[in-house]
Amino acid sequence: MTKLTSNSNTSPAANPSRFIQQERAASKLCTQQINTFLESNPDRRQQTHDLIAQITQDRVLATDSSYYDTTKEQERRNTAVKIARLAQYMEHDIATARNNFANSNLIQDLQANTGKEPPLTAADLAIFDKRLSLVANIDPQLSTRVGVHLGLFGNCIRGNGTDEQINYWLQQRGAAMLRGIYGCFAMTELGHGSNVAQLQTTATYNPENRTFTINTPDLTATKWWIGGAAHSATHSVVYARLIVQGKDHGIRTFVVPLRDTDTFAMLPGVVIGDIGRKMGRDGIDNGWIQYNNVVIPQDHMLSRFVQIVHGDDGAITVRTQPQLDQISGYSALLSGRVNMVMDSFRFGAKFATIATRYAVGRQQFADKPGGKETQLLDYPLHQYRVIPQLALVYLVSPVAFKLMDNYYATLDELYRVSSAGDPKALVTVSAKLKNLFISSASLKATNTWLVAQLIDELRQTCGGHGYSQYNAFGKGYNDWVVQCTWEGDNTVLSLTSAKSILKKFGDAATRGKFDADLDGDQFGYMDPAFISQVYTGAVSPGNLNDDGEANLESYIQIWAIVLVKLLIHVGKAVKAAGRDGAVATGGDGAISKLLVQVSRFHAIYLMLQTYYRKLRDADDSHISCAASRDALWDVFRLFSLYHVDKHAGEFLQLQVLKARDLSGTVQPRLFALLARLRPECIALTDALELPDAMLNAPIGFFDGDIYHNYFGAVTQANPVEPDGAGLAPYHAALTAMLHRR
Amino acid sequence: MTKLTSNSNTSPAANPSRFIQQERAASKLCTQQINTFLESNPDRRQQTHDLIAQITQDRVLATDSSYYDTTKEQERRNTAVKIARLAQYMEHDIATARNNFANSNLIQDLQANTGKEPPLTAADLAIFDKRLSLVANIDPQLSTRVGVHLGLFGNCIRGNGTDEQINYWLQQRGAAMLRGIYGCFAMTELGHGSNVAQLQTTATYNPENRTFTINTPDLTATKWWIGGAAHSATHSVVYARLIVQGKDHGIRTFVVPLRDTDTFAMLPGVVIGDIGRKMGRDGIDNGWIQYNNVVIPQDHMLSRFVQIVHGDDGAITVRTQPQLDQISGYSALLSGRVNMVMDSFRFGAKFATIATRYAVGRQQFADKPGGKETQLLDYPLHQYRVIPQLALVYLVSPVAFKLMDNYYATLDELYRVSSAGDPKALVTVSAKLKNLFISSASLKATNTWLVAQLIDELRQTCGGHGYSQYNAFGKGYNDWVVQCTWEGDNTVLSLTSAKSILKKFGDAATRGKFDADLDGDQFGYMDPAFISQVYTGAVSPGNLNDDGEANLESYIQIWAIVLVKLLIHVGKAVKAAGRDGAVATGGDGAISKLLVQVSRFHAIYLMLQTYYRKLRDADDSHISCAASRDALWDVFRLFSLYHVDKHAGEFLQLQVLKARDLSGTVQPRLFALLARLRPECIALTDALELPDAMLNAPIGFFDGDIYHNYFGAVTQANPVEPDGAGLAPYHAALTAMLHRR
Repeated sequence: MTKLTSNSNTSPAANPSRFIQQERAASKLCTQQINTFLESNPDRRQQTHDLIAQITQDRVLATDSSYYDTTKEQERRNTAVKIARLAQYMEHDIATARNNFANSNLIQDLQANTGKEPPLTAADLAIFDKRLSLVANIDPQLSTRVGVHLGLFGNCIRGNGTDEQINYWLQQRGAAMLRGIYGCFAMTELGHGSNVAQLQTTATYNPENRTFTINTPDLTATKWWIGGAAHSATHSVVYARLIVQGKDHGIRTFVVPLRDTDTFAMLPGVVIGDIGRKMGRDGIDNGWIQYNNVVIPQDHMLSRFVQIVHGDDGAITVRTQPQLDQISGYSALLSGRVNMVMDSFRFGAKFATIATRYAVGRQQFADKPGGKETQLLDYPLHQYRVIPQLALVYLVSPVAFKLMDNYYATLDELYRVSSAGDPKALVTVSAKLKNLFISSASLKATNTWLVAQLIDELRQTCGGHGYSQYNAFGKGYNDWVVQCTWEGDNTVLSLTSAKSILKKFGDAATRGKFDADLDGDQFGYMDPAFISQVYTGAVSPGNLNDDGEANLESYIQIWAIVLVKLLIHVGKAVKAAGRDGAVATGGDGAISKLLVQVSRFHAIYLMLQTYYRKLRDADDSHISCAASRDALWDVFRLFSLYHVDKHAGEFLQLQVLKARDLSGTVQPRLFALLARLRPECIALTDALELPDAMLNAPIGFFDGDIYHNYFGAVTQANPVEPDGAGLAPYHAALTAMLHRR
Repeated sequence: MTKLTSNSNTSPAANPSRFIQQERAASKLCTQQINTFLESNPDRRQQTHDLIAQITQDRVLATDSSYYDTTKEQERRNTAVKIARLAQYMEHDIATARNNFANSNLIQDLQANTGKEPPLTAADLAIFDKRLSLVANIDPQLSTRVGVHLGLFGNCIRGNGTDEQINYWLQQRGAAMLRGIYGCFAMTELGHGSNVAQLQTTATYNPENRTFTINTPDLTATKWWIGGAAHSATHSVVYARLIVQGKDHGIRTFVVPLRDTDTFAMLPGVVIGDIGRKMGRDGIDNGWIQYNNVVIPQDHMLSRFVQIVHGDDGAITVRTQPQLDQISGYSALLSGRVNMVMDSFRFGAKFATIATRYAVGRQQFADKPGGKETQLLDYPLHQYRVIPQLALVYLVSPVAFKLMDNYYATLDELYRVSSAGDPKALVTVSAKLKNLFISSASLKATNTWLVAQLIDELRQTCGGHGYSQYNAFGKGYNDWVVQCTWEGDNTVLSLTSAKSILKKFGDAATRGKFDADLDGDQFGYMDPAFISQVYTGAVSPGNLNDDGEANLESYIQIWAIVLVKLLIHVGKAVKAAGRDGAVATGGDGAISKLLVQVSRFHAIYLMLQTYYRKLRDADDSHISCAASRDALWDVFRLFSLYHVDKHAGEFLQLQVLKARDLSGTVQPRLFALLARLRPECIALTDALELPDAMLNAPIGFFDGDIYHNYFGAVTQANPVEPDGAGLAPYHAALTAMLHRR
């Protein structure tokens, strides 16, 4: 620091913390209760805070302003060192989950697989999974780099391997415990991303010695973007076309070793290169892989749903279980999507906290010359830019936890049912899994897009200071936006999800087919009775001006109505396109554009509904404080109306609203809610309970001392040189220019 | 490269270039004519290409994939070396502009100011200015870093200095020729960005020795974000409060030396630090400056519009010329805004070329299993994502050139008039300058936002490959988005511009005040006759389904109508807010939100109108090829309808359109236009005539050989190591983890 920091209470530099502390003190909200609501329940809340404390206070894992000044090479190294540190926490977390600290050889016994310890389960890894999800909030590349191994590699084996294979690779070889081997997920190729069915890598069966030859036939078949391939992975799971006696049996998965696990020397036939710099997450060593006729034993094919059988007569048969097969196909990616909805909550929370505190502390322009400058958040337009983003964070949380719980429950059920072999139960669980696919796709696409917008929009509200790397937005955005295209491109996911919704809707609307038990929860708007009410105009959005609790469902209902009308509209367009020829009329494109909206509206509907049900339920909400409940309902109303207004085109075009509803109700009401929520913004961000060490953005720290914190971070990362000159190492280039003849 | 690149024509890797070459060959468009249209006229086109060739073939200035792999320190150094290189071009460009290569001492004679050479003019620097604008397209930080000196520092002196001061600092000291001194622009402070009037730095006049004391009174008054301060600048122009005998005379500008020009040693009282890492443009050495009672001579105050006069009676008077003063106040920033509209064209062109070629070359999913995969751009939804962005690029170009010409012409007029001292002419030029402020603000804000969206949206259409740093989107986005908040924050600029538009509109609508000579060109929709036609419903959007040339104005008129209706709507809201109290009803916020739309719609209107007038005029368009003209009209129609549909909410709410117009006309027509433009997309991007060396993104190169080019760039930047192992320097950390006890 230099002499010229402030040490006077009358300095303008003292204003921000004064404002923030005053607004904090003035609030009647119970931020701890609200945090419990956001963290799902008291136990989970406690766990979140315990884990955050460990992460942010661990010298290896913690980040500070130097985090923003690292090169790709440093990031790669630091990330690897942090993974080694996480491996130590993992053993601790497994012992905690088993409540078994008595056996000091727990991990060794698990790996030895002598039966001394029961086999590793998902429950054993639950604490660590949550730790990883929280680590993502201070260092996303770290969670991804280790997540590729534990999540993608591990879940591919779990989803496609036999029990023996699962046990062998994950437990005996140690992969699930970050021991012995390190895996990567070799799905994507240079020429094929979303279209897995067209991958070109081949796995040709050699009956004479019961092996497979893995081969990359062409440049475009090069495995591409493979996280961990460049430096870390000893093994890959490869998505390749199974070729048996010249016949193509489609895409199957194979474990293919890449490097010697001791020396890390590359194995014969394997060629690997580094993918290099990315827009973000440079700590992940993404690489490309080419397989030059690499031979692996038959048991390296993951064989839960596909087996090659040599008959007594010498005939070779490929046995598959198509139904389960399809289910398992994407299970490795499903987990990622569910996690990305949770990430949306946590990332959004971080940037909403930073921008809100800055907006309360920062002043700009006075009503009259020389007058007191206005706090940014006192401008209604600034409220409009900031508070709906904060509302988004609140609305994502309940649906993220619900989706996560639903995912684990459904997967448990699937394993139970597929082991028991009950075909009727299998149909039910398949349908549940399908619904999970639909909603997770729609929620992943919608929320990763919304949070990308949130980061960008909130960065802009912080003006130039938002552009400083030390205030987290730049790196945060770069790290975030890959979520919009990876593990299911958002546009592709939206279309997939919406097509399934449209089909379901068609069944309900035209054939009255609606299974309330199965679909009532997520697709309530498809109840044929409701559809016909909408169709006949018997139902309309309630009075959105009415603050009564009885009227709260209106804020969901308006989305249910627009979804039904939109789906009817799409249905008609599909018919018309079929009749007129899609390309000539542009019908096909118009339909796709509408389908993306279907997916988005479905997600918004689910978010509102899940939030509503949780908050309405006194036990589940954990909110006894009336002021807090009132504020949370305003957040709910605001979120609904903000997005209604954002999508005014659709609401008017589909005649859910009239022009005067927008001008007379939605828009004034929206700004009235912003004004009402304005005084509680500090409390609503405090309630997110993110410590400064997790924000790592000095303009957003808890004490609100924006300017001292920010100046401190900049000067810490860039110390003023002792000679005071700041002479650049290259200054001769400048002086030579200025003094040239 | 490894063995596994393709060398077969039947390889899928050969498809992209085949598609792109086929579509190129099939097009009937005259891309050279179109490029002339886009580059304004044949002479300018020739100049553009000559300059691009020099830039991209200069070994110091050119960029390749290694450009994406540099650290902040390397970027800082490389940028300085490139500036020194540009200084050499500058001397060449001045000699070219003067057509004076006979005097080999031209620059020395200019600097000596002996009268041997006429003084330096804006025309002398025109070629170099254009060079700098084109350099920005391969290395934006380079143009900015030198632009801070030449543009901000230089224009501040030009706008606020007396003729003697301009001559002294820019010519004799050499600043305008990148000699002798290097300037920075010390306006923004830690606590104040957009609100210049509230800056806190003081310049206190010392009558006893006729000096000023420049002082930073508080932490928040620290000059912040100052480009060039950390390493390059020997001098600063400081925006500070002029204090004379205890009285505050508002913000004035002062030249304050920072470093010794020979040794670069910091001068007494000056403290400078490095701002460090930013979201982008790390090659710029932004710094912070604190002035500890630094004393400068009186003549260092820029005194064109303010003078301190010692009377014979010993009285000290501060003389100001308020009218000119206000005009000049922002002239340093005006140039930047005009340039950013041009940047929007050139940056947009770059990313539109990359994404379009990728969309034509890339295939994904087949109609039926095993069938030929579809080119991305054959999906109507993909057309909807890509082609309107290409249309944006086309629509920005004419308005960018017109604004630039208008800017230079108005500034010329201002200098002539203010020297001649004709008060009536001064009023006219002030009004012109005011219009320039309005339109440049609206166009800067709207287009920098639209191009930020363009880069983001187009990156997503390139999927994972868009996230690779080597394909330009990541760094491009990070470098670009600062344009949304700097030199006039977009939201603040939009509001400022819209408030002026609203005032003008009020005069026209309620008092029939409309000066067709002055305002007819930019504000045609304010013609009172037109307003009253809109008000009475006597005018309506034409038939947007009609392809006739006579009907083309409809695509502009619909924006004129929506602007009038929106402005009437805002006017009513302002009245209502005045009556009801703005905060209680949220009226104020709703109004600000509408004002941002006013600014945006005004910009869209100007873009359409300028494009229309240029293309309609056979001489000005330079288009004789009918197929090209037809395609350019389709681009025009598409741009209008795409944004009508994007803003469907406003068009429906304001009852410019009915729901059935959207469903029945706008949306089907939009997709029909996309389908019509689809086959010409390669030609329309070729017509942008950006060489590969300027794109620096292998998935967008001219030959369309996407996969080989991309693989080549990645492996060139990240060579496969000789032992084939890719062992990371830190691999011991990984093996220690995997083999831990």
